[in-house]
Amino acid sequence: MLTVVLVHPRNPLNIGAAARAMSNFGFADLRLVQPYDLAFREAKSAVGAGPVMEAARCYDSLAEAIADCTLVVGTTTGSNREGLQTMRRVESGGKLLARHKGRAALLFGSEKYGLSNDDLSHCQWLMQIPSREEHRSMNLGQAVAVCLYEMIRNPKAADPRPVVGREATVEQTEALQGRLAELLQLSGHYDHTAVAGSERRLRALIKRMHLNKQDTTIWLGIFRQILWKLKHPG
Amino acid sequence: MLTVVLVHPRNPLNIGAAARAMSNFGFADLRLVQPYDLAFREAKSAVGAGPVMEAARCYDSLAEAIADCTLVVGTTTGSNREGLQTMRRVESGGKLLARHKGRAALLFGSEKYGLSNDDLSHCQWLMQIPSREEHRSMNLGQAVAVCLYEMIRNPKAADPRPVVGREATVEQTEALQGRLAELLQLSGHYDHTAVAGSERRLRALIKRMHLNKQDTTIWLGIFRQILWKLKHPG
Repeated sequence: MLTVVLVHPRNPLNIGAAARAMSNFGFADLRLVQPYDLAFREAKSAVGAGPVMEAARCYDSLAEAIADCTLVVGTTTGSNREGLQTMRRVESGGKLLARHKGRAALLFGSEKYGLSNDDLSHCQWLMQIPSREEHRSMNLGQAVAVCLYEMIRNPKAADPRPVVGREATVEQTEALQGRLAELLQLSGHYDHTAVAGSERRLRALIKRMHLNKQDTTIWLGIFRQILWKLKHPG
Repeated sequence: MLTVVLVHPRNPLNIGAAARAMSNFGFADLRLVQPYDLAFREAKSAVGAGPVMEAARCYDSLAEAIADCTLVVGTTTGSNREGLQTMRRVESGGKLLARHKGRAALLFGSEKYGLSNDDLSHCQWLMQIPSREEHRSMNLGQAVAVCLYEMIRNPKAADPRPVVGREATVEQTEALQGRLAELLQLSGHYDHTAVAGSERRLRALIKRMHLNKQDTTIWLGIFRQILWKLKHPG
């Protein structure tokens, strides 16, 4: 179970964006420590994340917000200012967070200053998003999205549609090749019979297209029609 | 080389956020197809991404925007509407994009409608961010951030600070244990000599703290001071 804690967030748009990313990636518990703008619940950026926004709770202090958590992790795109905690890149830290039994809190600081040293002292360890050294500071909503994405990403999940349709059979591609050869000959593209290895070249040309069954049928139809027109001009 | 193409983006804030994520993750080439708001370059959300915003180019059509690209990939959080292309999850698609030699274009549709079927027909394959089925639609800036993060993430990169400081030596932790035993005895916490295995329990208690050199020294100092006070009351 993950709780996202925004500490002193200033911009309601960012709070809404954080809620939206949570909803996108399946997280429900949002807590805010002294948000600057108390009208944050109206943030239009929380498109589709109404339930997350409505259930969001406000706290006066970080200690109260994380009282029931068994792991507290702070996020930072900068350096480990005081060096008091172990720092993990999000690639490894995200996995640890996802595996944690019990409630874990993931803290994000204000847009301008990030987490304070005092906030950081509440954390067991820190998590760093590997942004470019010359431009470390990320948008709050985007930082939340990247951390949550890392927690739910599944490199072993099958692609939803690895190949469109079934592969064409050799019989089909050979038929296509035959039509193409006929087409080239009739159109005078080259003298089919005179070129050594032309059949082999046409076959390789067609193989390189990686056609599926459906598209092979479409191409066969196109070739057939052109052949008919070539044979019946005018 | 990656080019990010925003097709008909409506909100300058999102264009700025896309530029910021690009700058965070080290991408420079932003192209826009008929942005709704031509004043997009003033987007305040592009904090720190001035160079990306200034170099951004506008095009009248998608075909023109991607003319020099050798791979074109469309992003979608929804379903593969017409099923004309191979669909890949971002976990596998991001790797393919990162490995591509030559210029690859990654397309993002408008906030409201995503990429149109016409836009999708320009794509070699599609990439899907695995958001929750009940709330698929992501914020544009966050979708850009997640895709680019996936491209630069490096699971093999070492954590910047795997452990804070060096591990404590056994000599140090044994010294600490000695002080703690003394402390318990003097404070009357329990009769140290009477409890079988108490030494073993104290050792395990201290080992579980995974103290580093520095923190062991801090604890030794604290214990020493309390011992002194116990021995010199009043």
